[in-house]
Amino acid sequence: MMNKNRPVIARAHTNIALVKYWGKQNENLIIPQNDSLSLTLDQFYTDTTVTFDPTLTADAVLIDNEVAQGSDYQRVVDFLDIVRQKAQTPDRFFNVNSVNHVPTAAGFASSASAFAALAAAASRAADLKLDLTELSRLARRGSGSASRSIFAGFVQWHTGNDDETSYAEQYASAADWDIGVIALTLQKSRKKVSSRQGMQLSVTTSPFYSEWIKLANSDIEQIKQAIDQHDFTTVGHISETNALRMHALTLSADPGFIYFTGQTIEMINEIRQLRKMGIECYATIDAGPNVKVLCQKENASKIMTHFNQLLGSENVIYTTPGSGIEYLEK
Amino acid sequence: MMNKNRPVIARAHTNIALVKYWGKQNENLIIPQNDSLSLTLDQFYTDTTVTFDPTLTADAVLIDNEVAQGSDYQRVVDFLDIVRQKAQTPDRFFNVNSVNHVPTAAGFASSASAFAALAAAASRAADLKLDLTELSRLARRGSGSASRSIFAGFVQWHTGNDDETSYAEQYASAADWDIGVIALTLQKSRKKVSSRQGMQLSVTTSPFYSEWIKLANSDIEQIKQAIDQHDFTTVGHISETNALRMHALTLSADPGFIYFTGQTIEMINEIRQLRKMGIECYATIDAGPNVKVLCQKENASKIMTHFNQLLGSENVIYTTPGSGIEYLEK
Repeated sequence: MMNKNRPVIARAHTNIALVKYWGKQNENLIIPQNDSLSLTLDQFYTDTTVTFDPTLTADAVLIDNEVAQGSDYQRVVDFLDIVRQKAQTPDRFFNVNSVNHVPTAAGFASSASAFAALAAAASRAADLKLDLTELSRLARRGSGSASRSIFAGFVQWHTGNDDETSYAEQYASAADWDIGVIALTLQKSRKKVSSRQGMQLSVTTSPFYSEWIKLANSDIEQIKQAIDQHDFTTVGHISETNALRMHALTLSADPGFIYFTGQTIEMINEIRQLRKMGIECYATIDAGPNVKVLCQKENASKIMTHFNQLLGSENVIYTTPGSGIEYLEK
Repeated sequence: MMNKNRPVIARAHTNIALVKYWGKQNENLIIPQNDSLSLTLDQFYTDTTVTFDPTLTADAVLIDNEVAQGSDYQRVVDFLDIVRQKAQTPDRFFNVNSVNHVPTAAGFASSASAFAALAAAASRAADLKLDLTELSRLARRGSGSASRSIFAGFVQWHTGNDDETSYAEQYASAADWDIGVIALTLQKSRKKVSSRQGMQLSVTTSPFYSEWIKLANSDIEQIKQAIDQHDFTTVGHISETNALRMHALTLSADPGFIYFTGQTIEMINEIRQLRKMGIECYATIDAGPNVKVLCQKENASKIMTHFNQLLGSENVIYTTPGSGIEYLEK
């Protein structure tokens, strides 16, 4: 029954969290501390081809046409071990070819689309017949935010408390929504704290962390109401305050740190300035210096013109909502 | 009995809060939300000359040799109204000449030394015989942090809950302490939120504010123990985390904002780097972009050389602990 030789190709899109995931209750299973809610995006995706190859004696992994090595390789192998375990094929290995169409510089976590695509392609190659919820759980084991990239539209990742109960699902389609995201690529900061480290430090040392959990869960309820009502203003406002409060957790850790650079601060101020001029848009920022701008169609070109002038057009990328997991034919 | 014609000259030094004052419970009386603890500094001070002049029909105020106008003038007059009320001399006016030896660019609040000196000079000119506690209460009405500049050394401002119970006092002398402060002057940020506005916004909109109060009061207890033990490392560590957590309040307000510029973040990273190299020093930052470095004598020149190279020596000023309020003879 096994598709031993037929390659399976899956495409997953990245997503931007409007209510952020920040902190794990279980590091190994990647069970988060709070619900998060994201929008899946069209422009940024990963295509992953997997063959369940009986001739291999170890997993072979190409990422962006280079042989994966060291911790990058190990992270994929650890994930494939979970697939092998589920498929009860401990001695079979995968050939993986993963191509990211996510400009690393744009500061989107390619791990979200990468592990969503890998979960879909590897599980099908191993003949596991997973429904979308099962796929979301599996993708979560590779990268928390990958659990959300299985679905299109507005997606909620339910915290849960174990492997079974922690998964994402679509909350609402974005097909009838007027919303877009402009990704601004800024200079890299000199220092880098991984989001995994940053989360750990926030959970264990920020005196504000317990309030964050309450806040995030309350933001989820409010943003869902705003999504129901197609209320862009409230969605934008919650997204911006939620993001800055996530960053307040890193600043209040011990040692406190910040993912922002001076340009991050300047771009937040630019967005505020545009709002004052009546051009509605909101900032959201993940664990890095880059800023994403939430906007509506009528304002997108004005906002892009503004940031093109400041940053150069190569550093300003516009995208609309994207689709969920897809299987491609060769 | 009144010194109607004799000028009274008072000198007050500025102070740097190691556990920050951030938020008022009473805007009018300037009763804070939490205790704060500061170190009075030597290099930065204000000399204020006050004459209680029977020939005047309104207060005359010179600040740094310019006639004070608008809101600057009104703030002084409002303060002098309190002195007039205490002295029961509603129809008499003051001649005030205030000279700040606080480089505005260094980002120290000159209002702390300015209102401490004004409180001392005006109250004596009006023949009020105030003890240091009464003087601290009076200075508080002009600017919260001025209540601390009445005293030398490590100074605690007790929150209190009314005019009578909210005042500062010396917790410990710094005479037998090895501690200095290097003030780094950075580029100004484009946007400016006054500390008064910033506090209000934090108190009313940050979901983390109630935790801040608990934290600050706990930091006070711990830093006092460290001061008792001459434990520079703990004093430095508490000062740095407390400052960053104060800034986390502004970032978590609605709208969230930050006093940092990119240079602020770079300087924090430089300080961390110096620590890794074994040169012990800690950052503290008030409501603005500038960074102050806490250090000990043995490391001061190495640290200054490092920052001189980065910022130019005109932007790096070293100071040691200073004295409390003094009256000067002409």
